[in-house]
Amino acid sequence: MDKPQLIKMIKHLSKTKTDKLFLNDFLLTWEKEKSELLAVFQVAQILRGMRDNNISPKVFDSGLAVSLFRDNSTRTRFSFSSACNLLGLNVQDLDEGKSQIAHGETVRETANMVSFLSDIIGIRDDMYLGAGNTYMKEVAQSVQQGFEEKVLPCRPTLVNLQCDIDHPTQTMSDALHLINWFGGIDKLKGKKIAMTWAYSPSYGKPLSVPQGIIGLMTRFGMDVSFAYPEGYNVMEDVVSVAKKNAAQSKGSFEIAGSMEEAFADADIVYPKSWAPYAVMEKRTDLLRNGDDAGLKDLEKQCLENNKKFISWECTRDLMNTTKNGKALYMHCLPADITGVSCNQGEVSADVFDQYRVPQYIQAGYKPYVIAAMIFLSKFENPSGKLMEVFNRGTNRIF
Amino acid sequence: MDKPQLIKMIKHLSKTKTDKLFLNDFLLTWEKEKSELLAVFQVAQILRGMRDNNISPKVFDSGLAVSLFRDNSTRTRFSFSSACNLLGLNVQDLDEGKSQIAHGETVRETANMVSFLSDIIGIRDDMYLGAGNTYMKEVAQSVQQGFEEKVLPCRPTLVNLQCDIDHPTQTMSDALHLINWFGGIDKLKGKKIAMTWAYSPSYGKPLSVPQGIIGLMTRFGMDVSFAYPEGYNVMEDVVSVAKKNAAQSKGSFEIAGSMEEAFADADIVYPKSWAPYAVMEKRTDLLRNGDDAGLKDLEKQCLENNKKFISWECTRDLMNTTKNGKALYMHCLPADITGVSCNQGEVSADVFDQYRVPQYIQAGYKPYVIAAMIFLSKFENPSGKLMEVFNRGTNRIF
Amino acid sequence: MDKPQLIKMIKHLSKTKTDKLFLNDFLLTWEKEKSELLAVFQVAQILRGMRDNNISPKVFDSGLAVSLFRDNSTRTRFSFSSACNLLGLNVQDLDEGKSQIAHGETVRETANMVSFLSDIIGIRDDMYLGAGNTYMKEVAQSVQQGFEEKVLPCRPTLVNLQCDIDHPTQTMSDALHLINWFGGIDKLKGKKIAMTWAYSPSYGKPLSVPQGIIGLMTRFGMDVSFAYPEGYNVMEDVVSVAKKNAAQSKGSFEIAGSMEEAFADADIVYPKSWAPYAVMEKRTDLLRNGDDAGLKDLEKQCLENNKKFISWECTRDLMNTTKNGKALYMHCLPADITGVSCNQGEVSADVFDQYRVPQYIQAGYKPYVIAAMIFLSKFENPSGKLMEVFNRGTNRIF
Repeated sequence: MDKPQLIKMIKHLSKTKTDKLFLNDFLLTWEKEKSELLAVFQVAQILRGMRDNNISPKVFDSGLAVSLFRDNSTRTRFSFSSACNLLGLNVQDLDEGKSQIAHGETVRETANMVSFLSDIIGIRDDMYLGAGNTYMKEVAQSVQQGFEEKVLPCRPTLVNLQCDIDHPTQTMSDALHLINWFGGIDKLKGKKIAMTWAYSPSYGKPLSVPQGIIGLMTRFGMDVSFAYPEGYNVMEDVVSVAKKNAAQSKGSFEIAGSMEEAFADADIVYPKSWAPYAVMEKRTDLLRNGDDAGLKDLEKQCLENNKKFISWECTRDLMNTTKNGKALYMHCLPADITGVSCNQGEVSADVFDQYRVPQYIQAGYKPYVIAAMIFLSKFENPSGKLMEVFNRGTNRIF
Repeated sequence: MDKPQLIKMIKHLSKTKTDKLFLNDFLLTWEKEKSELLAVFQVAQILRGMRDNNISPKVFDSGLAVSLFRDNSTRTRFSFSSACNLLGLNVQDLDEGKSQIAHGETVRETANMVSFLSDIIGIRDDMYLGAGNTYMKEVAQSVQQGFEEKVLPCRPTLVNLQCDIDHPTQTMSDALHLINWFGGIDKLKGKKIAMTWAYSPSYGKPLSVPQGIIGLMTRFGMDVSFAYPEGYNVMEDVVSVAKKNAAQSKGSFEIAGSMEEAFADADIVYPKSWAPYAVMEKRTDLLRNGDDAGLKDLEKQCLENNKKFISWECTRDLMNTTKNGKALYMHCLPADITGVSCNQGEVSADVFDQYRVPQYIQAGYKPYVIAAMIFLSKFENPSGKLMEVFNRGTNRIF
Repeated sequence: MDKPQLIKMIKHLSKTKTDKLFLNDFLLTWEKEKSELLAVFQVAQILRGMRDNNISPKVFDSGLAVSLFRDNSTRTRFSFSSACNLLGLNVQDLDEGKSQIAHGETVRETANMVSFLSDIIGIRDDMYLGAGNTYMKEVAQSVQQGFEEKVLPCRPTLVNLQCDIDHPTQTMSDALHLINWFGGIDKLKGKKIAMTWAYSPSYGKPLSVPQGIIGLMTRFGMDVSFAYPEGYNVMEDVVSVAKKNAAQSKGSFEIAGSMEEAFADADIVYPKSWAPYAVMEKRTDLLRNGDDAGLKDLEKQCLENNKKFISWECTRDLMNTTKNGKALYMHCLPADITGVSCNQGEVSADVFDQYRVPQYIQAGYKPYVIAAMIFLSKFENPSGKLMEVFNRGTNRIF
């Protein structure tokens, strides 16, 4: 993107309704209007275009971004860190192990205590069903109350870095990848995407990606085909959301009986392992009770059960059944690649390798998607502010 | 605070003697003159006023602030991080577990090795009686020597983030809260503050807050009433300091026999648990000898002993005995709240809830108090420098 | 260094050939031409001179520097952090324990995933023989490929923060210390340096420092005398490099039979413990197999064997045999000091103390050496860019 294109995009942004993103959290994509999702895509592209043109979009001279990772993370951690750094915020990790939080401190108190000079709070909390999104909402309410009570000088906004329900920074990056891959958001209309379960020799993978994908891709008039083995269903609420979205966007949503059915004539495939909802529920109880023996038992059962579906692998043969044999393969990474990261996994090595570069490009949108979410939550007139940033013309590298 | 008020405060600061704060550490409040404490309050308010007016007080274009936490921390860690970030310093944590410090390296060597491009060193070391303050002084001497030997380009200054004797960033925040609550430092004269022990089902809490409070509040002509159960006395040296301070400031200091006596007609109450000095001494020995069995025994004894004083709880009835039943309740947080964070604790839930907002506001001063300590240690003419910063007019958010 | 000297140095730099440093990694000193090493020394001095004159050499308005420490570090961690901060980069640590890397993710994938907005990758990987340098090269290839595939907007450059072969940020700092100590790089010609093994009651110390020293000091026409007890030899390849270097620079390289022989008439001595190559090889196998019992056995054997050479200590008597009894003592720190950090170690306390200040000064070059490596990898015309920075005149402290 050259500078004239950049100016054009910034001006174009002014036509997109963004006011409800201002001072608002980003928790679930289906809580946002379509225009708001478009604004995130646009701002992400603009910020990327600026950086690629050595223009620094730093808008904070100081300020903290709190990160709280209740689960491991590489991609999202670096994406969040990159996004905050790009805009001028400094990440301060809330390490619950090194804090006094264990001592019965309330969520409200912790949320306020870390927010006195904080602009953003990013949270990953995906291990406990029914917990992650609930926790984020509690943190959001707490800082809202703190702001209203004049405890906090501003209302830090929350970015969901993966919860039990959705993984919006991932799925929005996935969507932006599709937009650029197919040449525009309008091109997604009528495209078939297969979101399917795939076999993995591990267990307990969160539901947030498949749920997030069916909840988001149904917004753009796509034909979403969702397939999983018996018992591997996800949250009913999210399935309802997907159905409603599809109806509204004049796309479609179906639950297919097999990988083969979902892949047939698909434009895009997203085969990925996850744990059955029922297992995640049991697991949540066992984790809460600290029942290690129970957890081991459950893991054994679950891995045993997984093995029944070892044939759910994204192979060359299956890829050949997609639209012209050329569907775009997607994964949120890291994938379980047969013969590479495990003996038998989600995808064959040759299919993965064929799409390795597009997948890395897909992952590369995440820092900008997060930066866009932050930017839009902080500026009421993002187009105007971005034009100011452009005209200021500070170099990213001197 | 609006901009004209801000200018007025900055000008007013020039009347306060601050020269001995320049290039000096902040370890114990009673090592500072009263005018120096006032300067910290003033600069804290000015920095806060600037940020509230979207003026960035960043004065370092680069530079490290070393943090060393030998005990858990949430509030102070985020406060230190916020303060450093506000002024432009980047916190680099010295994680003794990930370093080679264990291998018999001297304090002098480590202190110098982490300080080549560092401006500030913040340390929390409150677990061992007789150790924390001693360690800080050794670090201070080490970097002073390093500076004199031309090993270091500047003398990093130390900020005590809690030691075995004092917790100055906490108590100075507490005092600033009182100043704003009562409408000026002169209004503190003659106010009665009850610093009392309170029951908690935990053990081994540091003495630094009660010691710091009696050592600081006696500076302002307050009537400080200090109460604790038999055996829960604190360091004799600090009690002497409090007595001397009270005499000089024409306030008073008394050791009361009960919570009831201390609370009677008090304007402010600060009920908080701590471990008896003798227990902390024993604990220090056991920790040093790695005597786990001994530590467990001591914990058991201590918790058993605590239970004798389970009635030391800040209840509504007790609050009713304070001045007009309206004393300001304070705590350094997190508090042990009966029925919330424990079955039976330091304070009843209704009293805590009534004062929750003031307490959060109290905690919110800490980042600015730390920033003020840093600022005053780095600029010989703080009033002039702040006016320059004001006139520069860089926005905190672009 | 005053400002006119600074300008002179910046101008002088334009005469040094630096083009091959541009966009290039810094892994082993012997992969660099002599002029490139000189450029690193020059830029390090200039950056230090700027900071000492309160000129901020910040050249990045944002950007990440990834750090990956697979072994403990204090000095190098703070040096890397200081260097990045000085130039405007923000360090984001890749903590393999908190990431998903364990799950069979390829090096190529991780390297790309952390690099979307990263300019620099600093790695310490010195525990496994044959692994550290290999890993760094794999990371370098991965990001090179990512850049060529348009996955990454720029090619992050690698800085070796210690591998199994070399420790260039250490040895370049050591060399810069010698240059300043003796008054110029030309003064090193003909100076005798004794790089010798010394006794330590620990085991498994990396070979990278002795290897790095003999590989680097032979570049400057020095007489390098290398001494170690039987069995404590290092990598053959590096010895060959040292021989070749010495021949080219018209210095000399010898393997001496004893500390005494090496110290005789030396201008500089660098006595330091390391593990025998054969032990490190065995250790690498045992570590890879997770053979804890084997590791304990090996440690025991090795410590036992070390004891045979307990007389290899840098004492006053030995120092008296050096040139005029005044050789410069060097160590990469922390040293095992007899009677201070251990009962019997590498150096006597009085010798260490005599040279404590020069050693600290030696350590103080590391942040600037790292910053110079980063700077030279990012600017094609470093002299011109430094002059721009100088003329910009931004204060480091406002």
